[in-house]
Amino acid sequence: MADEVILLDYWPSMFGMRTRVALEEKNIKFDYREQDLFNKSPILLEMNPVHKKIPVLIHNGKPVCESLIQVEYIDETWPGGNPFLPSDPYQRAQAKFWGDFIDKKVYGPTRLIWGAKGEEQEAGTKEFIEMLKMLESELGDKTYFGGETFGYVDIAMIGFYCWFDVLEKCGNFSIEAECPKLIAWAKRCMKRESVAKSLPDSNKITKFVPELKKKIGIE
Amino acid sequence: MADEVILLDYWPSMFGMRTRVALEEKNIKFDYREQDLFNKSPILLEMNPVHKKIPVLIHNGKPVCESLIQVEYIDETWPGGNPFLPSDPYQRAQAKFWGDFIDKKVYGPTRLIWGAKGEEQEAGTKEFIEMLKMLESELGDKTYFGGETFGYVDIAMIGFYCWFDVLEKCGNFSIEAECPKLIAWAKRCMKRESVAKSLPDSNKITKFVPELKKKIGIE
Repeated sequence: MADEVILLDYWPSMFGMRTRVALEEKNIKFDYREQDLFNKSPILLEMNPVHKKIPVLIHNGKPVCESLIQVEYIDETWPGGNPFLPSDPYQRAQAKFWGDFIDKKVYGPTRLIWGAKGEEQEAGTKEFIEMLKMLESELGDKTYFGGETFGYVDIAMIGFYCWFDVLEKCGNFSIEAECPKLIAWAKRCMKRESVAKSLPDSNKITKFVPELKKKIGIE
Repeated sequence: MADEVILLDYWPSMFGMRTRVALEEKNIKFDYREQDLFNKSPILLEMNPVHKKIPVLIHNGKPVCESLIQVEYIDETWPGGNPFLPSDPYQRAQAKFWGDFIDKKVYGPTRLIWGAKGEEQEAGTKEFIEMLKMLESELGDKTYFGGETFGYVDIAMIGFYCWFDVLEKCGNFSIEAECPKLIAWAKRCMKRESVAKSLPDSNKITKFVPELKKKIGIE
């Protein structure tokens, strides 16, 4: 029986992008089902009753929730070729640490940059740059976060790249001026078909943000 | 060369307890170093410069941060005997989902129960019971979260048990009345030497909370 892979997702989500990239990297065909987060579908509520959030990866009828857990699941289910995580336990722990760091420290400030104003927005911008600098220092002169191979941390972070333009406009700063190596890394990632195919155009995100603010009632 | 294992920890931490239990389960001798979180030591700042938090597991001089990552690291580094995570990718993903759920959904409300008052405290209590009920429903009639074997989700959750008494007193509710199966599970876990050895006495936590509130300036 061929695998049935369904992805419940929402196009601007940097979390959903992780799972898209991971599936593309493994050459897994999947049925992408766009979700309306302001009117959640029965399948989303059924497949992720705890968090009621996208992305949800449904493999042969069984749901896997939380994007980084999905990335690991994809790596373990389709191990052939390019593993996302190294085999050495210490290096694996380091990769997971930075994936977790992105969730805990990078995502929050982005919301303040596009969603807040004044002091709160400034604090978000400052925090965001600081966090990106930590990532840049971890990246160093390597090609990818894990070294020569595109992997787990790259997948965890790359979706934020298509939000960089709108964040820079909202917060009035330049990421490239602060973190040139990180931008060079993102451009390298964008040359991969898996990434280019999975990330929406920055302009589309820029146009989407005012719409989103209206939808959630902060504009 | 024998392994050198150091744990930077703080005795009331339910996160630190995870790592203690995991090390005990694998029969790994470790050098426990109590940390003063209100006056952080040079070794803590050096070994976890990003978050500056305990627990930090230092294995042969190299730090691993974040408790659930440590639990996986311990499982992968000392695989003999009792694996914490199942080998099946789907079951692994489910275990990681519930570990992540405990971090995202169970911990937050506990702080409101002991640290807040009035409506905020009530909201925390309500949320906490709701989250415990979700865990109880996931546990069902199984011996442990993973089935017959004590593992990852048990390790992720059990440290909260020694906080239950003080939470019940602060929030004026009974966890056993709401979640009898969860309490039976916790009592089963407490029969394991690894757990009994790693969790402080509930009374000690109850006495500690007013002290903690003074220290962080909320009393």
